[in-house]
Amino acid sequence: MDVRKLENLLQEVRSGETSIEEALARLRSLPFEDLGFTRIDHHRSLRKGFPEVIWGAGKTSGEMLTIVRRLKEKGQNVLITRLEERKAKAIEKAFPKSRYYPRSKVLTYLTQPVKPTGKGTILVITAGTTDIPVAEEAAVTARVMGNLVDTLYDVGVAGIHRLLAERKKLETARVLIVVAGMEGALPSVVGGLVDRPVVAVPTSVGYGTSFGGVTALLAMLNSCASGVAVVNIDNGFGAGYLASLINRA
Amino acid sequence: MDVRKLENLLQEVRSGETSIEEALARLRSLPFEDLGFTRIDHHRSLRKGFPEVIWGAGKTSGEMLTIVRRLKEKGQNVLITRLEERKAKAIEKAFPKSRYYPRSKVLTYLTQPVKPTGKGTILVITAGTTDIPVAEEAAVTARVMGNLVDTLYDVGVAGIHRLLAERKKLETARVLIVVAGMEGALPSVVGGLVDRPVVAVPTSVGYGTSFGGVTALLAMLNSCASGVAVVNIDNGFGAGYLASLINRA
Amino acid sequence: MDVRKLENLLQEVRSGETSIEEALARLRSLPFEDLGFTRIDHHRSLRKGFPEVIWGAGKTSGEMLTIVRRLKEKGQNVLITRLEERKAKAIEKAFPKSRYYPRSKVLTYLTQPVKPTGKGTILVITAGTTDIPVAEEAAVTARVMGNLVDTLYDVGVAGIHRLLAERKKLETARVLIVVAGMEGALPSVVGGLVDRPVVAVPTSVGYGTSFGGVTALLAMLNSCASGVAVVNIDNGFGAGYLASLINRA
Amino acid sequence: MDVRKLENLLQEVRSGETSIEEALARLRSLPFEDLGFTRIDHHRSLRKGFPEVIWGAGKTSGEMLTIVRRLKEKGQNVLITRLEERKAKAIEKAFPKSRYYPRSKVLTYLTQPVKPTGKGTILVITAGTTDIPVAEEAAVTARVMGNLVDTLYDVGVAGIHRLLAERKKLETARVLIVVAGMEGALPSVVGGLVDRPVVAVPTSVGYGTSFGGVTALLAMLNSCASGVAVVNIDNGFGAGYLASLINRA
Amino acid sequence: MDVRKLENLLQEVRSGETSIEEALARLRSLPFEDLGFTRIDHHRSLRKGFPEVIWGAGKTSGEMLTIVRRLKEKGQNVLITRLEERKAKAIEKAFPKSRYYPRSKVLTYLTQPVKPTGKGTILVITAGTTDIPVAEEAAVTARVMGNLVDTLYDVGVAGIHRLLAERKKLETARVLIVVAGMEGALPSVVGGLVDRPVVAVPTSVGYGTSFGGVTALLAMLNSCASGVAVVNIDNGFGAGYLASLINRA
Amino acid sequence: MDVRKLENLLQEVRSGETSIEEALARLRSLPFEDLGFTRIDHHRSLRKGFPEVIWGAGKTSGEMLTIVRRLKEKGQNVLITRLEERKAKAIEKAFPKSRYYPRSKVLTYLTQPVKPTGKGTILVITAGTTDIPVAEEAAVTARVMGNLVDTLYDVGVAGIHRLLAERKKLETARVLIVVAGMEGALPSVVGGLVDRPVVAVPTSVGYGTSFGGVTALLAMLNSCASGVAVVNIDNGFGAGYLASLINRA
Amino acid sequence: MDVRKLENLLQEVRSGETSIEEALARLRSLPFEDLGFTRIDHHRSLRKGFPEVIWGAGKTSGEMLTIVRRLKEKGQNVLITRLEERKAKAIEKAFPKSRYYPRSKVLTYLTQPVKPTGKGTILVITAGTTDIPVAEEAAVTARVMGNLVDTLYDVGVAGIHRLLAERKKLETARVLIVVAGMEGALPSVVGGLVDRPVVAVPTSVGYGTSFGGVTALLAMLNSCASGVAVVNIDNGFGAGYLASLINRA
Amino acid sequence: MDVRKLENLLQEVRSGETSIEEALARLRSLPFEDLGFTRIDHHRSLRKGFPEVIWGAGKTSGEMLTIVRRLKEKGQNVLITRLEERKAKAIEKAFPKSRYYPRSKVLTYLTQPVKPTGKGTILVITAGTTDIPVAEEAAVTARVMGNLVDTLYDVGVAGIHRLLAERKKLETARVLIVVAGMEGALPSVVGGLVDRPVVAVPTSVGYGTSFGGVTALLAMLNSCASGVAVVNIDNGFGAGYLASLINRA
Repeated sequence: MDVRKLENLLQEVRSGETSIEEALARLRSLPFEDLGFTRIDHHRSLRKGFPEVIWGAGKTSGEMLTIVRRLKEKGQNVLITRLEERKAKAIEKAFPKSRYYPRSKVLTYLTQPVKPTGKGTILVITAGTTDIPVAEEAAVTARVMGNLVDTLYDVGVAGIHRLLAERKKLETARVLIVVAGMEGALPSVVGGLVDRPVVAVPTSVGYGTSFGGVTALLAMLNSCASGVAVVNIDNGFGAGYLASLINRA
Repeated sequence: MDVRKLENLLQEVRSGETSIEEALARLRSLPFEDLGFTRIDHHRSLRKGFPEVIWGAGKTSGEMLTIVRRLKEKGQNVLITRLEERKAKAIEKAFPKSRYYPRSKVLTYLTQPVKPTGKGTILVITAGTTDIPVAEEAAVTARVMGNLVDTLYDVGVAGIHRLLAERKKLETARVLIVVAGMEGALPSVVGGLVDRPVVAVPTSVGYGTSFGGVTALLAMLNSCASGVAVVNIDNGFGAGYLASLINRA
Repeated sequence: MDVRKLENLLQEVRSGETSIEEALARLRSLPFEDLGFTRIDHHRSLRKGFPEVIWGAGKTSGEMLTIVRRLKEKGQNVLITRLEERKAKAIEKAFPKSRYYPRSKVLTYLTQPVKPTGKGTILVITAGTTDIPVAEEAAVTARVMGNLVDTLYDVGVAGIHRLLAERKKLETARVLIVVAGMEGALPSVVGGLVDRPVVAVPTSVGYGTSFGGVTALLAMLNSCASGVAVVNIDNGFGAGYLASLINRA
Repeated sequence: MDVRKLENLLQEVRSGETSIEEALARLRSLPFEDLGFTRIDHHRSLRKGFPEVIWGAGKTSGEMLTIVRRLKEKGQNVLITRLEERKAKAIEKAFPKSRYYPRSKVLTYLTQPVKPTGKGTILVITAGTTDIPVAEEAAVTARVMGNLVDTLYDVGVAGIHRLLAERKKLETARVLIVVAGMEGALPSVVGGLVDRPVVAVPTSVGYGTSFGGVTALLAMLNSCASGVAVVNIDNGFGAGYLASLINRA
Repeated sequence: MDVRKLENLLQEVRSGETSIEEALARLRSLPFEDLGFTRIDHHRSLRKGFPEVIWGAGKTSGEMLTIVRRLKEKGQNVLITRLEERKAKAIEKAFPKSRYYPRSKVLTYLTQPVKPTGKGTILVITAGTTDIPVAEEAAVTARVMGNLVDTLYDVGVAGIHRLLAERKKLETARVLIVVAGMEGALPSVVGGLVDRPVVAVPTSVGYGTSFGGVTALLAMLNSCASGVAVVNIDNGFGAGYLASLINRA
Repeated sequence: MDVRKLENLLQEVRSGETSIEEALARLRSLPFEDLGFTRIDHHRSLRKGFPEVIWGAGKTSGEMLTIVRRLKEKGQNVLITRLEERKAKAIEKAFPKSRYYPRSKVLTYLTQPVKPTGKGTILVITAGTTDIPVAEEAAVTARVMGNLVDTLYDVGVAGIHRLLAERKKLETARVLIVVAGMEGALPSVVGGLVDRPVVAVPTSVGYGTSFGGVTALLAMLNSCASGVAVVNIDNGFGAGYLASLINRA
Repeated sequence: MDVRKLENLLQEVRSGETSIEEALARLRSLPFEDLGFTRIDHHRSLRKGFPEVIWGAGKTSGEMLTIVRRLKEKGQNVLITRLEERKAKAIEKAFPKSRYYPRSKVLTYLTQPVKPTGKGTILVITAGTTDIPVAEEAAVTARVMGNLVDTLYDVGVAGIHRLLAERKKLETARVLIVVAGMEGALPSVVGGLVDRPVVAVPTSVGYGTSFGGVTALLAMLNSCASGVAVVNIDNGFGAGYLASLINRA
Repeated sequence: MDVRKLENLLQEVRSGETSIEEALARLRSLPFEDLGFTRIDHHRSLRKGFPEVIWGAGKTSGEMLTIVRRLKEKGQNVLITRLEERKAKAIEKAFPKSRYYPRSKVLTYLTQPVKPTGKGTILVITAGTTDIPVAEEAAVTARVMGNLVDTLYDVGVAGIHRLLAERKKLETARVLIVVAGMEGALPSVVGGLVDRPVVAVPTSVGYGTSFGGVTALLAMLNSCASGVAVVNIDNGFGAGYLASLINRA
């Protein structure tokens, strides 16, 4: 839908030719902006209710700065994932209020306060300490999308008492994100203890037959506990995003 | 926790030695019943808020009847999945109020009315007609767990207009279950159109390099749309169960 | 050919009773018997301390009867695995003291009492009820090899309280065999609770991405608990055999 | 050796000008030139109608220069793919009229004007911005082979409106090349919108279970839309070449 | 787009509110018919220029008859693939003019003469005799879509002279479909001999490491000849369909 | 068409007996015969020195009989592999001198005495008794191709003394074929004991992670012994054929 | 279990409310210490009888030092695996009595003498010299856990006499660890020679289809010898730990 | 220990020169030498008829020098494969008569003239130029083992005339080694043209779905030409070694 058609549509509304409902419906899904190398979807925050999320890998610092500047002008909050430290520094320099999380390689830039939209607490759990970077990506994503987030790290199934000792935390969460590598068993145990949705995130932690997270992924897909769904390997962002959708009022 | 300890616990409560909270906490997770071939978890409906679900494959009709009888005595609703027609007949004969869905091989037996617990509508979508059995398993599961369920079948991405024509349905659902085989692309498209959680279910529909649903599964895990999580291949039950957890008030 | 016989041979050489050519020929290796279709290793029970084990699949009833007859003449106990019911009937008819276990398709024929060689108890655990056939193969194997065997079935990780309720059994076993399909998480949890060797057996129980037991196998190989080793999918016999070796005085 | 030369040879045999042995030797096949490390097929442009294409990876700068020099002498146009920047510089220095495309690592060297042979427009589409290098390889290939090429980048299925907004472009193309990584769903949607051949190119864009492009490849092979064929992962050249063959008058 | 909106659209056209071009554009993509179990796309032949194609597997004879009847009423030609002989008989009985090809399990039902739309000949080649069923599916598809089709069977690469003896056929075809199982090498050789598009179809012919066609598929994707694209394993229909799109004027 | 005939043709051209067009046409390739469903290569026994081998799977009894009859007329010996018993009966009835081996599903039909062409003995070894069918296919193939064949069955590596006891046999063979399923270790051990070529044949014997012979195949490809090459899973024929080529004078 | 509950428990014990057995049972499984980035399990040495083992990969030198310091204070022995040389140096500097094994990247720090708990000798065997780093990890682990360890390196199956020459060593070991890459055949041969448990460790030694140890792993899982169990690829630690559990009195 | 020495031993036993214990000990196996990190098998050249071959990867320069020195003392020829240039320089410095081939990373050191043992010519063929390093490893191996070797490079199947032009070379070779990456089709075509053993070597040349040589390997295993056997990916040495065994008188 180009500018001319947009004018036409508005004129049709003015003239009564097109109803306001119709116009709203059309406007909701069509426009976006073409920067040459990428199409920013400014209506996304209307459609999906959340800020634009940028995949940092494979974009240059220059491209990144252009995008952030444009989003800032629109007053949108920004979340950049998989951002190498070197590029993050360039953005932090240009936008001092941005914040970079080196462990999870996430950068947030809040041009306006985050609106609290979550109804309950999202609890992010890890099996081991090496799973924490992925968990942090999930936690930051969920926070910037307006949720209360709690964490429970290093409670893998080989020491099941560590998990059971925190049962209260498990039971008060409204959505649970469970992050695990190796044999990926933790979501099954957590899923058996709670009656809330569990978003399982396999990580590439492990060696040999962990196959970069495939073993954990397969285990999670075959969970004998009901109420568990799975996202891609190391996809902390995806888990945080989905948990936010679930947690919205 | 054997019977003797249970007596002890109750005596401690009576004597005031143990508080009621403590007793509730202990009672919540321990007891179950041993039928020799399986352990029925009567407290499950307390813990998880839902009836016992039985995996029909690999159990004899006799075993199945014993289980259903015991659950009926406890006044629990029953959902049996992957139940061959032959075995279903035996159960329908013994329990005439049970209902069998031959396409999805699911049997429900409601010993008490289903309590409406879902806040919104769960919409079950399929890419093709051959995906319907899995979708029906999801829909029946969600209904018996207290949800309003709507369906939208045969709207695969090769005829994208079929999906877009139903955009209103998409936008009014609170949770969406998207069932697809072959290239498994539908959840990505749906996920881009709505701002609600999408539970993607790969099906074993296809041939050659569909690899019994693996291709659809992989595509769904790599969805470029945010807000999509995946369950095991053909796992309609799992999707219905998870959607019910998400949809609860 | 044991050391004594070898000494005799060398003494015969020294005394000239046996020619050097003859000695050369006999020195090449140890004796076994050739039935045309298979080589029975009568020295096995000497070398390995256990009876001959026959793989029932792929042998005809006739071949099986010949083998059992020959073993009976040697006074050896017999264990046949993967034996179809039809063939088992033929053997039971010919050897009425033999015993067939239809669930695990194992047949035992004890021509002499089993010598108790195990030092402690071997505990066989399953995650679900559909894992029991494999578990029974392990249990029968261990019993016919002279061990006390205890079982604990249907204690999968989605209801972790079922396992924790039996913690005493876990702690008193000297070797544990843990049998699980689906996500194969049980050995990790058990391995974290005990300080004894855990032999993990993946089963082909499951569907979709369980890949006939591969998912459970991979999970077990990646167990975050130490002290766990794995045998082939559905290899109850192998687990029972290994546990017997471990348990010997 | 074209048919005319073969006729000449036979006539020489008839006239006795050429001996039968000589004829036997020459009849065996068609001529090519041996540079020691590679066999340049100068008849290729006769047989296939296109210039020689060089695979740049795994050849030294020196080897590359030798080949280009020889091809220049024959008056052939040159296309080099997968050429590292360092080697490209050496060629650009020696042949200043050559042109290097750093994003796609393609170099073209036109010793004569490209003959326009394509009947319609080839449209190259990408799902995301990170797919552009592969798309550019396809576009440059198609252009150097005599086609009009148009592009449409960053129109992935998670924002289906971006694609639908360009429907006119889709419908006026004669051949479409669709380049996508991750879940590889775009060719299915495009294939459902047009009635022209779609050449799908999976890219190695993604992480975790994208498996370096395998997921996209499998999705494309299982496209529910008819009229879609697939080339190897990241094989932009192959797609451009095939599209050129299709588009020729 | 429901009936009411369609009325509105037509009234807008009548009143001049909407131009005929606009109305055509809208009408082109939206309507389809809902039979409950499947959505027949009557506009498909307008959009894609070809008759409706039905996937026979997984539909009952009754469903099939309903669909064929409805398509007949619309005057559309019908092509059913993967149709078991038993179901084919039911259709042949109801529609005597239909024709079933048992080797390829394809049924055609021509309610009107096929319009010749192809510009050249499509040549269908197989490596072995066991590849013929898939080749026939491709050939019938291409014929019913208005093409001249020639065949060349059993010319696999282990007897390269068989292929070279037919070089004239190869060179006069405008599109080539090459069907091969086992090592899938034939498309590479054919692709090197012609300057026309080659559609490669891997078949599930073979054993052991042929992996049901995966080996042939991989070989075809890695063809060292340019101008080769690949469809799914055993997908003769897809190859015939794509070749028809390429061959259209 | 051998060299002599080619010379004749060129002489006919020189003498004018044959026109240049005719010569052009005949020069294109070598003759073979087209039976409609298959191309029999009568020149094969000249080119390759062995009789025609027919792949029995996927051909009807009728087709088979036609082929055998034609080959008999040419005086060629026949070897049919993968021939179901039912079809074998039909051939044995029509050609009483043919011989069927039910265990390996091979049929031989000698229309003339086998010429002894092998220089030494080919030894066929198996790891277990269930590998014998594949071994027999290899042995029959080698015998019908003119070799002395010896066998050594059931000498797998778990009882290494069984193999070492037959070391003389190993050392006197000129080519060794080693057939093994499960872990496929036997070729490595044999290859370390002899200084002759070892052709390794993986079999689909095993269960679970034997993956239908893939494990044995991989082990054989990774043999730490030099002098071992591998053929496809269960490809006894291929091993016998290759061993015959190696053993020829 | 927080501090308050622990006080309560102790008060209950003092008052006689709770017996000492009960208190012991509760205390055994609950407490652990939270360092922020990891949870050290100080009760592990009580529960499992062994010191804490640290996975060195993915922890910083600083984190490592904190952990070691804390463990030293508790008087526990320390074993760190997968420790890069650079980090090892930092630890050796802070704790001069620690010892680093560069080949296997293991560090031990004995704050108290190792208690001899093993009943017999653990024999660690390798197929080749490149398997030694993994074997050393196993050997060091077993020694620090109180076992006599013997080694036998470079006795792979391609030179079977090297293994047979050491038969006495094989027969006197109580547990055997067999480490092999490539085709992974050694455990099968060893398992056939002894009547003791064999722990097989696949290594990532090899190239091509060794697939980083997967081939060796699969071969070991399919061992035709009984009494063999497998741990993850390159998991020398796991093998040493399991062997220690087996060898304990 | 050859037969003569064994006879001597037995005669010493008979004469009483050697005690029975001593004889028992010496009879156990054949001698080899232990260098601590590797066991050199000096009897290998007797048993297998070829010099010791060293796998260069994973050994230090120091270890390598020790081995070469020892082998030199024994007067054995040396072949080292997979030797990095850096290490090769150290050896060339110490042993100036050694020769390093940088393309294939092979080093030969001839302490005595190579004895010509091959009966015919071994022809080494490659599909492309990038396959040459692997081909050279095969050629050098075969030469150092006493064979005449010819080469034919860059004759892949996409330009089949390049291969057919060299048919004489093909037909005069006694053994053929065919080296190919990508789709690995060349061995099938070569195998169909000759009646000699073909040793196929897949290479890791390619990208995307070539999977590091797996595609070529699978294609070769499924060759429709008889007489083809396969070695591991990039295993030029193995092919040269096997071809030498085949070619020996």
